[in-house]
Amino acid sequence: MTAKFKILVLNGPNLNMLGKREPQIYGAQTLTDIIEQLSSKARGMDISLSHVQSNAEHGLIDAIHQGFGEIDFIIINPAAFTHTSVALRDALLSVAIPFIEVHLSNVHARESFRQHSYFSDVAIGVICGLGAKGYEYALDAAHQHLKVKNN
Amino acid sequence: MTAKFKILVLNGPNLNMLGKREPQIYGAQTLTDIIEQLSSKARGMDISLSHVQSNAEHGLIDAIHQGFGEIDFIIINPAAFTHTSVALRDALLSVAIPFIEVHLSNVHARESFRQHSYFSDVAIGVICGLGAKGYEYALDAAHQHLKVKNN
Amino acid sequence: MTAKFKILVLNGPNLNMLGKREPQIYGAQTLTDIIEQLSSKARGMDISLSHVQSNAEHGLIDAIHQGFGEIDFIIINPAAFTHTSVALRDALLSVAIPFIEVHLSNVHARESFRQHSYFSDVAIGVICGLGAKGYEYALDAAHQHLKVKNN
Amino acid sequence: MTAKFKILVLNGPNLNMLGKREPQIYGAQTLTDIIEQLSSKARGMDISLSHVQSNAEHGLIDAIHQGFGEIDFIIINPAAFTHTSVALRDALLSVAIPFIEVHLSNVHARESFRQHSYFSDVAIGVICGLGAKGYEYALDAAHQHLKVKNN
Amino acid sequence: MTAKFKILVLNGPNLNMLGKREPQIYGAQTLTDIIEQLSSKARGMDISLSHVQSNAEHGLIDAIHQGFGEIDFIIINPAAFTHTSVALRDALLSVAIPFIEVHLSNVHARESFRQHSYFSDVAIGVICGLGAKGYEYALDAAHQHLKVKNN
Amino acid sequence: MTAKFKILVLNGPNLNMLGKREPQIYGAQTLTDIIEQLSSKARGMDISLSHVQSNAEHGLIDAIHQGFGEIDFIIINPAAFTHTSVALRDALLSVAIPFIEVHLSNVHARESFRQHSYFSDVAIGVICGLGAKGYEYALDAAHQHLKVKNN
Amino acid sequence: MTAKFKILVLNGPNLNMLGKREPQIYGAQTLTDIIEQLSSKARGMDISLSHVQSNAEHGLIDAIHQGFGEIDFIIINPAAFTHTSVALRDALLSVAIPFIEVHLSNVHARESFRQHSYFSDVAIGVICGLGAKGYEYALDAAHQHLKVKNN
Amino acid sequence: MTAKFKILVLNGPNLNMLGKREPQIYGAQTLTDIIEQLSSKARGMDISLSHVQSNAEHGLIDAIHQGFGEIDFIIINPAAFTHTSVALRDALLSVAIPFIEVHLSNVHARESFRQHSYFSDVAIGVICGLGAKGYEYALDAAHQHLKVKNN
Amino acid sequence: MTAKFKILVLNGPNLNMLGKREPQIYGAQTLTDIIEQLSSKARGMDISLSHVQSNAEHGLIDAIHQGFGEIDFIIINPAAFTHTSVALRDALLSVAIPFIEVHLSNVHARESFRQHSYFSDVAIGVICGLGAKGYEYALDAAHQHLKVKNN
Amino acid sequence: MTAKFKILVLNGPNLNMLGKREPQIYGAQTLTDIIEQLSSKARGMDISLSHVQSNAEHGLIDAIHQGFGEIDFIIINPAAFTHTSVALRDALLSVAIPFIEVHLSNVHARESFRQHSYFSDVAIGVICGLGAKGYEYALDAAHQHLKVKNN
Amino acid sequence: MTAKFKILVLNGPNLNMLGKREPQIYGAQTLTDIIEQLSSKARGMDISLSHVQSNAEHGLIDAIHQGFGEIDFIIINPAAFTHTSVALRDALLSVAIPFIEVHLSNVHARESFRQHSYFSDVAIGVICGLGAKGYEYALDAAHQHLKVKNN
Amino acid sequence: MTAKFKILVLNGPNLNMLGKREPQIYGAQTLTDIIEQLSSKARGMDISLSHVQSNAEHGLIDAIHQGFGEIDFIIINPAAFTHTSVALRDALLSVAIPFIEVHLSNVHARESFRQHSYFSDVAIGVICGLGAKGYEYALDAAHQHLKVKNN
Repeated sequence: MTAKFKILVLNGPNLNMLGKREPQIYGAQTLTDIIEQLSSKARGMDISLSHVQSNAEHGLIDAIHQGFGEIDFIIINPAAFTHTSVALRDALLSVAIPFIEVHLSNVHARESFRQHSYFSDVAIGVICGLGAKGYEYALDAAHQHLKVKNN
Repeated sequence: MTAKFKILVLNGPNLNMLGKREPQIYGAQTLTDIIEQLSSKARGMDISLSHVQSNAEHGLIDAIHQGFGEIDFIIINPAAFTHTSVALRDALLSVAIPFIEVHLSNVHARESFRQHSYFSDVAIGVICGLGAKGYEYALDAAHQHLKVKNN
Repeated sequence: MTAKFKILVLNGPNLNMLGKREPQIYGAQTLTDIIEQLSSKARGMDISLSHVQSNAEHGLIDAIHQGFGEIDFIIINPAAFTHTSVALRDALLSVAIPFIEVHLSNVHARESFRQHSYFSDVAIGVICGLGAKGYEYALDAAHQHLKVKNN
Repeated sequence: MTAKFKILVLNGPNLNMLGKREPQIYGAQTLTDIIEQLSSKARGMDISLSHVQSNAEHGLIDAIHQGFGEIDFIIINPAAFTHTSVALRDALLSVAIPFIEVHLSNVHARESFRQHSYFSDVAIGVICGLGAKGYEYALDAAHQHLKVKNN
Repeated sequence: MTAKFKILVLNGPNLNMLGKREPQIYGAQTLTDIIEQLSSKARGMDISLSHVQSNAEHGLIDAIHQGFGEIDFIIINPAAFTHTSVALRDALLSVAIPFIEVHLSNVHARESFRQHSYFSDVAIGVICGLGAKGYEYALDAAHQHLKVKNN
Repeated sequence: MTAKFKILVLNGPNLNMLGKREPQIYGAQTLTDIIEQLSSKARGMDISLSHVQSNAEHGLIDAIHQGFGEIDFIIINPAAFTHTSVALRDALLSVAIPFIEVHLSNVHARESFRQHSYFSDVAIGVICGLGAKGYEYALDAAHQHLKVKNN
Repeated sequence: MTAKFKILVLNGPNLNMLGKREPQIYGAQTLTDIIEQLSSKARGMDISLSHVQSNAEHGLIDAIHQGFGEIDFIIINPAAFTHTSVALRDALLSVAIPFIEVHLSNVHARESFRQHSYFSDVAIGVICGLGAKGYEYALDAAHQHLKVKNN
Repeated sequence: MTAKFKILVLNGPNLNMLGKREPQIYGAQTLTDIIEQLSSKARGMDISLSHVQSNAEHGLIDAIHQGFGEIDFIIINPAAFTHTSVALRDALLSVAIPFIEVHLSNVHARESFRQHSYFSDVAIGVICGLGAKGYEYALDAAHQHLKVKNN
Repeated sequence: MTAKFKILVLNGPNLNMLGKREPQIYGAQTLTDIIEQLSSKARGMDISLSHVQSNAEHGLIDAIHQGFGEIDFIIINPAAFTHTSVALRDALLSVAIPFIEVHLSNVHARESFRQHSYFSDVAIGVICGLGAKGYEYALDAAHQHLKVKNN
Repeated sequence: MTAKFKILVLNGPNLNMLGKREPQIYGAQTLTDIIEQLSSKARGMDISLSHVQSNAEHGLIDAIHQGFGEIDFIIINPAAFTHTSVALRDALLSVAIPFIEVHLSNVHARESFRQHSYFSDVAIGVICGLGAKGYEYALDAAHQHLKVKNN
Repeated sequence: MTAKFKILVLNGPNLNMLGKREPQIYGAQTLTDIIEQLSSKARGMDISLSHVQSNAEHGLIDAIHQGFGEIDFIIINPAAFTHTSVALRDALLSVAIPFIEVHLSNVHARESFRQHSYFSDVAIGVICGLGAKGYEYALDAAHQHLKVKNN
Repeated sequence: MTAKFKILVLNGPNLNMLGKREPQIYGAQTLTDIIEQLSSKARGMDISLSHVQSNAEHGLIDAIHQGFGEIDFIIINPAAFTHTSVALRDALLSVAIPFIEVHLSNVHARESFRQHSYFSDVAIGVICGLGAKGYEYALDAAHQHLKVKNN
């Protein structure tokens, strides 16, 4: 029996270093820890969760293309690509899958070049600064969004 | 017996019109509905929730000042003041109470003057575009924040 | 017997000083003089005119909210708030009452920060530099607008 | 017996297309209709009204030069030249005839390059967004201006 | 027997100097040569081609106005007016005739003020840097456009 | 017997928190302490000193309006309103009372949005970064100014 | 017997989604359709056409490097890389192969960040907004360019 | 016997109003006076001087085109076109006749939009603020330039 | 017996012209007058005051370097160097002597290039527009600063 | 017998290298040659000419101060100081001696940072690009200016 | 026996074309030549040198991640990624390995978009314009840095 | 026997304070130490090294002028003049001696106004952030440059 909704979680460059990298900003949890916890929560909501992390822009673009017609919602933390990748934005627009943008740290409190996102204006919503919990809120919000849409 | 944590919810100008105003952007719920639901959730978390909505900048500033030494966390939707009020920013800095900034709609998808916030860089985190659910996620994140801090 | 149309005239900060303040720019008429003359003209057009002047942003916002479902048209001289108040703009948008923006002096001939208005792009039209007569033209234009709309 | 005041109405490029062009923005009246109605009103005010429409910048400049020492007031809708013609601005300054700038549509609600005018800072006043009625208000305001000046 | 489609070719200021002027940039062909070759090609496509070159902005505007209701498509090389003429842009919008913008040289490789066009955002498409061949491609693309539209 | 000069001291938003708020920046003195010390100094100079602190913009505007024709000089610390309030600037201009702008901390060493003041270009002078002593220097300078003017 | 000229066609990220993606902007043809049609046309012109589409920047860079000393001309649609990839620009400069930049849609009518290209100033020419026909015109123009150069 | 050198003097829009217009800025001499004096000086230098004043951009462009192959040097006061006319710049470039730019008043002391010239960077030199004498200096400098070039 | 504190007063270029230069802006006092008055005041406060005025940037830099390890506080009016001299800023930073920046006139009311100071963000405080009295307030504030620091 | 007028010629940094430095831009004449020729011309006009060249900003400032009350007119080529020296501008303003700004080369055709002058807006006029002849025209214009003023 | 220090040399896109590409800018040496020479020098300094060149951003990111805990210093020539890759910057920050940025050519003398680097502000130092020698200086400086740090 | 090459080392303002000033940024070495070490290294390379440090802009300019025709290469650390001195740039251009720009600290990691250099685009190369070693690398690179040039 298949899950009611399929959600793809995408994580951008350097997020594989989570737990190793600048723990005072990002916390000590690894990305694997976060995704396992999120998957467990998703199962309880009858959601099938897939996950792709890539340091390559085309790795994320390919994952989005493969989700075309398959995936109901995307939760994306574009990391550094937030500020530089028009190609990733176009990939999301090309498949027309609704998505929420998540950042672990508060990007507004960092360098000025991190104030601009190529994703926020075409996202459903944005969550930042709430750590790994941000993914859970995004999962819940995605669930709400899909339930409303499917009624 | 008093609640473990005290959280103040602040709502800025025109949010009293919620449910009447541009429902295609903000939904049909009134602010009273939202706060009642949030209070109910807070009670289940042993949190005492107070709420102030004001169309006057000084109404919000006074509420913040009164929270000094009393309130553990603030959840604020500064609405239009997001983009114009240095005084409100200074009020939050003056009491040094941690806060999360919430917006019902996705401000990034609206007029360009809504892209700048006087609050985000000094907030714990920011949530936008997730409707009334945004307050609930903020409440949960505030709870997490206070539990960690009080250990 | 009630008037056919209800029009609200709003005047922003410092306009209560009219006649006292910089007469070489604004003329020697007081605001009371101007409103009385305007009311008299309105009566002749079967229009019920109400007036609010406030130095407080929330004073104007509250007047707009109270006009929701009651008022057919707003004539507003936001004075200094023209250049700074997103909250007032949002109040006008929240009640969806059509409005005309009036300025007594020619704002384009003054300081550069007076060149930007938060109201003009969502107004029906703008009149500036024509003194108190500007309110009369706005009243006439409002009348035209309402007559066309109600046919 | 000559009229008390002489007023020149100037209309810039493409206004000869009025009624044909984008009627949802400019209305269905032709420029001839508007000027006839305005002339009729002017006659009732003892004002002699002349009118020049030109798609050529020098056509308007020449009309202004010819008005030197003849014309008491100019009502000008510079249309597209509003944003590009320093020569037309200089022509108005060279003859030192007071003028009001009129726009049929609300230029503030259109493309960003229409936000700047080479005329507004040297005009008596500006009216925009009030359709053909804008010319009538300008005529009335010009009349007021000349009466005050000639007392 | 009339041609199936009527296309107007417009050439802006200084293009009458083609062949004399900076041949290392624009080639040695005269404008007459180019238009003759283009007309010959048009005849073979059952297209009636008219041509206007003018050093005067109003010369081009008048030609566009005369094309209203007559001409199916415009191919325009606005030359220097590309960067300065809002009036010409408005003329094209006023008649609502689809058009392609052509430049003989690659404007992107020249002075920075040539990077902005008042036409590109309202054109069907833009061709630059391909010399006189650019007009032929525009003619072919116009033909495609009209064939699709008339099916 | 009345004092020779009347001086109004105005303090903007959050200054009521002085002594509580960020003492490393503003010092441990309360606003009451500062004003008492200043009043005592004023009495010795035959100056009648009145004081208004408000978190509300209109609170300060009203105080200025009431000073019209009564007050000889204003010493104002607009706090956060320094950077945002055109209405307060207009209030000062409307009563034409000379004023000195005072800031406790060195605003030039803080966030970039604190670099612009709506008051400095129309003030007699500006003092910043010298703590509560800044009010005393302003009082002395006001005194000098009034003595020169009244000779 | 080898073809007279060798031309490489490069297509950037998301163009593999053509036909699936936003057909109201890009049309229903797939990239395979377009390239087949183009190859067929090339064969008739004695041109050997090779094609690379890649969602990876380095995929395109590698193709360009491999073309060094082999390829006579490049037709490139950099898609989203148009606005972000200095590396791709450098790759084209490093091999010194002349190229034409093609865009299916009119980039000038889209988001403002699409107005800047890292390629146009070093290209032979640019074609945009003419759909798949744009590649054919580029092929023809490349052919002209090579014929002239090889005489 | 023909003059050794042929120099064309071009004067832009509104310069026909010289003597009438803002004499405190431009002096009381008419353009005719200036040109007569200049012609007289030219005759003494064996220079044939021709003169064109036009309020129309194309009037000046046509004069330049007619000078192609005929005229040795141009002295141009583009007046308002200085700041707006790329077409006039292109006309001068198209005929490749060296020229000096002259302004009667000191444009640097006037409105900020008069700080940019489309001519200065391609001129031999620029003279401003020296009144009608500026033309004489330009004539002398042109003479020097031609003598050096013809040696 | 040596004075308790050593304070260096530095005056930048053209201040030697005080009393001669634009007295409506700077007053009729000469710099010698001002410094004598200031020295007298300093003696009463047990402060040893030295003074250097220089029109040369290196004159001021050398004076600062010589103050290293000798001088307790600097009062500087950098005059025109305020807006241009990074070297002077660096000199002050290199010796780490606290300083107050003084301007006789209100720089905020003058040309826009006078709005930026290379000194304010690293100064203790700034005083402007209060004439020669500004130096006295700075002396007093320096005294306060040194007394606090030496407790 | 003293000369009727006294004119000071000032030359800024690196002009002592004239004739050695970049002769393709500045010509082969040395500064001594130029000044001798100019002096000779001045003598014929009953003008006493003094000259100062300095690579030091204060060298020029001191010369200007010494001219106070002595010199009737200044001809200045500020060279690189044109773009950087507020102190030199202030020196000229402090003595209120009228001046003309001269540049040997056409600064508008060079680096963009050479487009701004701290002198032009307060000069009588500006001459650039006419080589050493520019000084002669300035001398003549100064003469005209002084003759008019002394009538 | 292992080397005392481990240094990773990273080269960005198109540097594999060195020797083939624009030799007038980059010289005729191939990257292999440069690295061999550098390795030889490193061996003499008891440094183990590894090298990665990649045209793919993720190729460089992965190399940096693999260096985490292994590599003591990085010498990086990010080539075109200098100006566009936040991800590469983040990778260097994530592993907290000190690095020097090297450019073969003088980037300051090229296109304006090459003036900004995402690396310089977090680098130890930057060397540009010194060709392949730049790597050797970087190697020496890295050695110095590590020797100091390990004392 | 004279040295093969003559190199001039120039150090700008405040560098005489090295060792005293902010040692955490610049190290504890004095400028004398650095130059002695450098001279010693130069002697071993058959290079004659001269050195000038000056806090005065004209001190450095004069040294450059004196090097004309004498000096083969300049190593310059313009210190604060990097960001402000066009005159120094012009001096270097006037003598056409190749030079390398050196900074002890990493200017990119400091205030934003330190990001622009008036020297980098006309230098052979730039070294920053490598401390006193930067001079040695510059010496070596200068040597390389001269050896290549003299072959």
